[in-house]
Amino acid sequence: MALGEFELIKRYFYQSARAFGVQMGIGDDCALLQAPEGKVIAVSMDTLVGGIHFPRNADPELIAERALRVNLSDLAAMGAEPLWFTLGLTMPKVDERWMEGFARGLFTVADEYNIALVGGDTTRGPLAITIQVHGAVESDHALMRANARVGDLIYVTGNVGDAAAALAVIRQELTVGKSAFNYFMSHYYRPQPRLKEAKMLRGISQCAIDVSDGLLADLGHICEESGVGAKIDLERIPVSTALNKVAEAEQIADWALAGGDDYQLCFTVSPDKLGQVQALIDAGKLHANAIGEIVKGSGVEVLLEGEVFEPKRRGYNHFDTDA
Amino acid sequence: MALGEFELIKRYFYQSARAFGVQMGIGDDCALLQAPEGKVIAVSMDTLVGGIHFPRNADPELIAERALRVNLSDLAAMGAEPLWFTLGLTMPKVDERWMEGFARGLFTVADEYNIALVGGDTTRGPLAITIQVHGAVESDHALMRANARVGDLIYVTGNVGDAAAALAVIRQELTVGKSAFNYFMSHYYRPQPRLKEAKMLRGISQCAIDVSDGLLADLGHICEESGVGAKIDLERIPVSTALNKVAEAEQIADWALAGGDDYQLCFTVSPDKLGQVQALIDAGKLHANAIGEIVKGSGVEVLLEGEVFEPKRRGYNHFDTDA
Repeated sequence: MALGEFELIKRYFYQSARAFGVQMGIGDDCALLQAPEGKVIAVSMDTLVGGIHFPRNADPELIAERALRVNLSDLAAMGAEPLWFTLGLTMPKVDERWMEGFARGLFTVADEYNIALVGGDTTRGPLAITIQVHGAVESDHALMRANARVGDLIYVTGNVGDAAAALAVIRQELTVGKSAFNYFMSHYYRPQPRLKEAKMLRGISQCAIDVSDGLLADLGHICEESGVGAKIDLERIPVSTALNKVAEAEQIADWALAGGDDYQLCFTVSPDKLGQVQALIDAGKLHANAIGEIVKGSGVEVLLEGEVFEPKRRGYNHFDTDA
Repeated sequence: MALGEFELIKRYFYQSARAFGVQMGIGDDCALLQAPEGKVIAVSMDTLVGGIHFPRNADPELIAERALRVNLSDLAAMGAEPLWFTLGLTMPKVDERWMEGFARGLFTVADEYNIALVGGDTTRGPLAITIQVHGAVESDHALMRANARVGDLIYVTGNVGDAAAALAVIRQELTVGKSAFNYFMSHYYRPQPRLKEAKMLRGISQCAIDVSDGLLADLGHICEESGVGAKIDLERIPVSTALNKVAEAEQIADWALAGGDDYQLCFTVSPDKLGQVQALIDAGKLHANAIGEIVKGSGVEVLLEGEVFEPKRRGYNHFDTDA
């Protein structure tokens, strides 16, 4: 006999949620959650569909890891600390081995980032995962897209472009050696939500976004919401050694500018706080690079050695893309 | 050119969320929400999959209505008042007419129950809708499944069985006249979340569940979580005149006991509060019927004129059912 929904939930997901503020976790009509005093709740929901956002036959442990990590990245982009998450899991059939792997991946990440599963829904249907994360942030420390100001410097954490290269490997458009393969797969399936970095930026930055749709597209959102423009220098955009080894400059520029899924933070810093951010970078605590400046106007202009550079693509669109 | 995700969100869902406590709605990495003072946040997530939970070709306005209504029902079952919701919408392609209808249905219900859309995700893939609702309740007024006590009376609001009959009509297993057709379809697609009733029960009941999986199954959850049993009398279970007209007693009993999707509240009342609940019923404010009693033991026993009645089915299982 197939496992029913209740047995499923109990067997794989019914961990007692002893996290902060959980008065009732899984097991009633609603979870009951107590927000930390003096803070607002930050919530974000993401759906990942099999065959669109990840290959249907991907390792369930990696699917779960990626799903939770990309959601945590939205909390980082808001400057919020993780508290709770809910999971909507739709599966074609109950496959216990698949479920086991999925639960293992999910709780590995949940434990690492101290976020508790408090509820959700499991249903039958085409493979898809919806996660909603809930975090807390002091209202005046939230990193808002609308807070960029003319004269701010623009930074990005880590490297960009690796996830786009990974997708090319998955689609068999790019062939790489074993160690590069492992490097790119790990960046694709195990993106690091920049929660530590977001915490460091408290009081230093007022504005951030995570690079999920591509650097140009996401910085473009900041510009639009803030009513400003941006100028960035292509040569200052950080890419990994691994990426430099497997592709030509033109391809790298496209992946770094328009490839999604890197989940780095792109943030802005006002002139009076530049010393503070530089001190963090110099101390080796914060891995981030200044890539340009917020300017009057609108849209993102890319320069290459001071000349206007016209990118091949400007972004990623879920309705035009297939994986 | 197809509409991209951002245009989609803007065109159909970007209503300024001026609801209680919304510091930031749609348009940043997270929504920022301020919980009402002295209350806990109740959250519940439900996924409805096209071809499983509703016919794929159903009217998008009705799909949206139903999706939000069934989620609101979970807030009612917890005794919580609606505040905010998030929407994960997965669609095979961007169909503007479909989206228009969907948004119309969604905001009709949102306005009726005073709940604000504050975020979510739209993606391409097989049709599915995930909604998470967020409400507020005073901690000691939450209607918990674990709060039933031996000697409590068991009540159910409205009628049960109509939604199961509606499903039989949709599946063309049951043929009915035009006015009965409209009646059953309306009960299936436009279930009334029992929020007003839940509010009336504040301080009167400590324990409720909404009848989504079927009366026996849902009352069974109460019994399990409370460590008690239940005895209910088949002849006291309320069914509609419409249902009595279209089916035989045996079929009606099955639909009323094991049919899901009615979204009535099943709640318990301790002996010292029976006067209060009866006063509400007598005043015509609360439509509810006592159907049995919480007893020592476990599981739900059904009696028909005092004799043990063995139900044909005991519940609804998402992984065994198809629509």
